[in-house]
Amino acid sequence: MAKIKCVFSYDGTNFSGLQIQPQVRTVQGELEKALAKIHKGAHIPIHPSGRTDKGVHAKAQTAHFETDYRLTPADWKRAINSLLPPDIHVDKTEQVPDSFHARFDVLEKEYRYYILNDAEPDVFKQNYLYHYPYQVDIKKMQEAGKFFEGTHDFTTFSSAKADIKGSRIRTLYEVSCQLNGSEIEFVLRGNGFLYNMVRIIVGTLLDVGRGKQNPSDIAALFAMKDRQAGGDTLPPQGLYLWQVRYTDGSS
Amino acid sequence: MAKIKCVFSYDGTNFSGLQIQPQVRTVQGELEKALAKIHKGAHIPIHPSGRTDKGVHAKAQTAHFETDYRLTPADWKRAINSLLPPDIHVDKTEQVPDSFHARFDVLEKEYRYYILNDAEPDVFKQNYLYHYPYQVDIKKMQEAGKFFEGTHDFTTFSSAKADIKGSRIRTLYEVSCQLNGSEIEFVLRGNGFLYNMVRIIVGTLLDVGRGKQNPSDIAALFAMKDRQAGGDTLPPQGLYLWQVRYTDGSS
Repeated sequence: MAKIKCVFSYDGTNFSGLQIQPQVRTVQGELEKALAKIHKGAHIPIHPSGRTDKGVHAKAQTAHFETDYRLTPADWKRAINSLLPPDIHVDKTEQVPDSFHARFDVLEKEYRYYILNDAEPDVFKQNYLYHYPYQVDIKKMQEAGKFFEGTHDFTTFSSAKADIKGSRIRTLYEVSCQLNGSEIEFVLRGNGFLYNMVRIIVGTLLDVGRGKQNPSDIAALFAMKDRQAGGDTLPPQGLYLWQVRYTDGSS
Repeated sequence: MAKIKCVFSYDGTNFSGLQIQPQVRTVQGELEKALAKIHKGAHIPIHPSGRTDKGVHAKAQTAHFETDYRLTPADWKRAINSLLPPDIHVDKTEQVPDSFHARFDVLEKEYRYYILNDAEPDVFKQNYLYHYPYQVDIKKMQEAGKFFEGTHDFTTFSSAKADIKGSRIRTLYEVSCQLNGSEIEFVLRGNGFLYNMVRIIVGTLLDVGRGKQNPSDIAALFAMKDRQAGGDTLPPQGLYLWQVRYTDGSS
């Protein structure tokens, strides 16, 4: 048995998310269809680093699978890509030790969120950035971002639908934003993210940018442990799983 | 009666071209649907500068329509945009003299064609650039572009399906290309373009870039007046109608 790790990108526009589901088009479904073709119809499950929602993109999602077939990493990449639709692409494959697990060994994930901050929408970016036409104060948003860094209970800033039995404590290493022309780029890095957490944090930062909240209010919002106190959940098309880093130093 | 000129952009990915056709989604169809809603169901035909094919984009397409309604240009823009899907957007509206015609008064059109010139595809660009993974000699392509400028019979470089009764003589003012990172941008400006002409000229330039043709061969290809002698018709997703300039100086 060989364990193969894949790093892959996808345009989430036409997928009902990553996780396989009956009747709908998913990233996992397409990858497993390709692997089944290679393995003469046998079902080869993939184990991704985590899920992404409908419409969310990935610049570098990671998954592993196990196989009896002996191919070089370059041949795995070529074989899988030749069977994938154009909105998924395997960028890297490597053989990893049996002990590697694409979900359990995650050290850090990086997400980015992109906003088109212009009065006019852009037809070519509708599926790739969230159009937010209001003027925002970037400095205040940067200041507010600092309050999200560190170890916190993120109940206020995650979906009420998130697993209620598990811990809601996570550590964020970076919550930053910058303006490039008419685009705002948000970078969030942490040891884990709860359901909708990136989209709610960025929604809250936009509230700060428009003056609905102050950077110094964030600590009080954390203390409330109430999803109602957080900002809106922004739409999926601005969100990208940007990179997954592992305990073995790989990404 | 007022004559209104609109400049609009569209992402051609999910349209069966500009021109209205039964049963399929077209740019003209969506615009006329919006105008009918504004005009209480009355059919208000739009007159575009010209057609674009399925999958072809427009950064600044132009059309005019006539109406009994009295709205300011800003209100026309707002009203139409509020009724359009997110892949079409009106960027500018203005009232023009009765004598103006969006097709007959065209002085010059500019098309651009974008290529991703990299070994790897990019899932986020599949609908917006043509992925051409081969190494090309940009200087030779620039040199060959010069041979397309000026007044020529473009029979070799247009679809055999183009109107055979009309003249195939057109004047191109610019045929240039440049490499920006891994993207090649082609700019073509002229007084008119035959069916598939941009896509065939750029296809021929790629043949030059790969060494299948020499820049100095272009004159002989023109002289053959044979579509078979020209390069391949490139796919639509790299093509953008970039700007339409009018005899009255507007665009």
